[in-house]
Amino acid sequence: MRWSEFFIKTQRYPPADEESANAKLLAQGGFIGKLASGIYTFLPLGWRVLNKIENIVREEMSLAGGAELLMPSLHPKEIWTVTGRWDSLDILFRLKTNSGSEYALGPTHEEVLYALLAHHVKSYKDLPFSLYQIQTKFRNEPRAKSGLLRGREFRMKDLYSFHESDEDRDLYYETIKKTYIKIFSRLGLNAILTEAPGGTFSERSHEFQVIAEAGEDTIYYCVKCNLAVNKEIAAGDSTCRKCGGATEEAKAIEVGNIFPLKEKYARDFNLVFKNKSGANQLVSAGCYGLGTSRVMGAIVEVAHDEQGIIWPENIAPFKAELITLGSNGSANVSKEGERIYKKMLANGIDVLYDDRREAGAGEKFKDADLIGVPRRVVISAETMKKKKLEIKKRNGKKMELVSEEKLFKTLGAKK
Amino acid sequence: MRWSEFFIKTQRYPPADEESANAKLLAQGGFIGKLASGIYTFLPLGWRVLNKIENIVREEMSLAGGAELLMPSLHPKEIWTVTGRWDSLDILFRLKTNSGSEYALGPTHEEVLYALLAHHVKSYKDLPFSLYQIQTKFRNEPRAKSGLLRGREFRMKDLYSFHESDEDRDLYYETIKKTYIKIFSRLGLNAILTEAPGGTFSERSHEFQVIAEAGEDTIYYCVKCNLAVNKEIAAGDSTCRKCGGATEEAKAIEVGNIFPLKEKYARDFNLVFKNKSGANQLVSAGCYGLGTSRVMGAIVEVAHDEQGIIWPENIAPFKAELITLGSNGSANVSKEGERIYKKMLANGIDVLYDDRREAGAGEKFKDADLIGVPRRVVISAETMKKKKLEIKKRNGKKMELVSEEKLFKTLGAKK
Repeated sequence: MRWSEFFIKTQRYPPADEESANAKLLAQGGFIGKLASGIYTFLPLGWRVLNKIENIVREEMSLAGGAELLMPSLHPKEIWTVTGRWDSLDILFRLKTNSGSEYALGPTHEEVLYALLAHHVKSYKDLPFSLYQIQTKFRNEPRAKSGLLRGREFRMKDLYSFHESDEDRDLYYETIKKTYIKIFSRLGLNAILTEAPGGTFSERSHEFQVIAEAGEDTIYYCVKCNLAVNKEIAAGDSTCRKCGGATEEAKAIEVGNIFPLKEKYARDFNLVFKNKSGANQLVSAGCYGLGTSRVMGAIVEVAHDEQGIIWPENIAPFKAELITLGSNGSANVSKEGERIYKKMLANGIDVLYDDRREAGAGEKFKDADLIGVPRRVVISAETMKKKKLEIKKRNGKKMELVSEEKLFKTLGAKK
Repeated sequence: MRWSEFFIKTQRYPPADEESANAKLLAQGGFIGKLASGIYTFLPLGWRVLNKIENIVREEMSLAGGAELLMPSLHPKEIWTVTGRWDSLDILFRLKTNSGSEYALGPTHEEVLYALLAHHVKSYKDLPFSLYQIQTKFRNEPRAKSGLLRGREFRMKDLYSFHESDEDRDLYYETIKKTYIKIFSRLGLNAILTEAPGGTFSERSHEFQVIAEAGEDTIYYCVKCNLAVNKEIAAGDSTCRKCGGATEEAKAIEVGNIFPLKEKYARDFNLVFKNKSGANQLVSAGCYGLGTSRVMGAIVEVAHDEQGIIWPENIAPFKAELITLGSNGSANVSKEGERIYKKMLANGIDVLYDDRREAGAGEKFKDADLIGVPRRVVISAETMKKKKLEIKKRNGKKMELVSEEKLFKTLGAKK
């Protein structure tokens, strides 16, 4: 992709009205644009990162047997009164039309899904199954803040699984635990499996927490065996209940939350199936959330320096950025830039080519560090004289002069 | 994909509360589920079709130079008062929170985009560019009806282009006209380019209309030269104003609408750039909509028979459906089914395998016709005896017995 064709609009300074690192750097780097408190546009660069995150999540959900669907955001009041959450959920956006119809904007989709399943689940032969979506959600947060960490409109993956028995659901719950660990590993994010309260539905749940100062949660984790517990349910003593090791307190960002719904909503919606004995039985369910836009914010919180973002390899907007220097009067450099760029594309390398003619070397280097592509490749009159190209990792200091052949090998050319 | 793993829930009868062919067949076939009037869930089968439609649109938008982004759905009232549309747009969903914040739910995104661009467009060097998104939209339709043809919540692609001059914009407008023609052709949909009124912004616009009884528009088209005009601006006589040929009247579904926005919103948001003479000038723009979920509905309206849907090749949920018959006591057929299914996957064939053990031949054939996959492949004790497989096009009557080799060749095996 050429810089000039991708609407990349970096700013000289971070926005004055943001405090968190992710909000500042993502806005300055042209990844997001703020529309209102907690409401952001994903600009092409940011949308590209979010897509990479969501595609990794999608692949792993599919491997875990989930079928993808898309439920609506506009929910008639009736289904929310069935569960009592029309009144009890304070973050629910509610609206009433002139003709008197009332709707909630979906912050989560148990109500929609259970209403739907009443038509489709009849027998134990219909179970188990799991369904998920990756979708925009709405929550009327009183204090939307911290950029992508707590928004009024945000992106989320929500998976729901349905089972004959709690035992079967518990087995699947363990599968998804492993799937989440794999997802966060692929995303380049160290997310700690943490015991957490179960909310209104069940006694226990698990969160995936990323240690970061910007986090709103507090966790205690054992330095010896890694057991982690959310402060809300921690006993408060300073030793690990499992191994007796010392525990440390840390601020953390919750990027995922999985919990057994048990029969709670099945009871509300009378979601029953005929079991093997022919009797009606309530469906047992689990639900598994993962905030994809929050993951994007959390990664920036833990992976940046004073110059900008340092994207992990798998979700960087591009794998490499190609820069040509000294375009004024150096037609040869431009020509060489075009040749290398086209060769990169032909070799399947995911490259951003900073082809701006009006930008100087300083601006191009500053922007490259800001947007945080993992590898920077430079072509200048000097490198051409030496018949080499300069390559540098974003997360490193060493610049290397390499041959064209070595460069393509390093970048993992497919051909 | 196996039938048993994709949450395909066909119904014996179409829903009683729907009238249009698309609403009936898509619900009966397990593509969509109705939550409320004009509000549908895309079930895995339907989501798969919609994704194929949207990916074709995405590819062509990208080829036309568009960069993809995602704008929010929750719009603060302030930006809608700038254009006066907070009050004038009757289909706008408006909501007010307890703390007094007012929002609109995005039916279109000029307001959001122009507010964003005020930060990013400064000089003629920043122009031209084009941005698009594929997104869920909201319209408070007084009479939501006809399934996916007119919804309160629906999917749409909206592209916006920005230019130094009307001349440059007109050139791009012609490019997008050609792009749309290509898109509809790839989607297997005969959409007629139709002259239409310009709304509040400009004197002219163009619609892409699909002739169908379920359509809400009326167009006049020339049987000789194909010139088509929306009834709203037609002069009313029965001869073509271009070639003098006879015109015919037809009901039609509008699946796309492109029009020049000119300087309308640039004036509202003071979106100016420094032109080559250094003077401030208003940005000229065009906007280009395409209803992706409506396209899905329109295709069903024009491509079905009494048995079900007949999906065009490119957007069918699967290219082929594999059916094994007589599973009771015929372990050989099941085994052969598994072998052929795995070979299809290994050969990159997009196949749905109806592996249901409890379903009989009649049910499997009925469901195959209902969900409308282009090619049906059958394995039975009989075909095995002949060392052949049976293949039949959904849109044809002839069943053919072919060798395994011929089958894979017909299905376009990649290996």
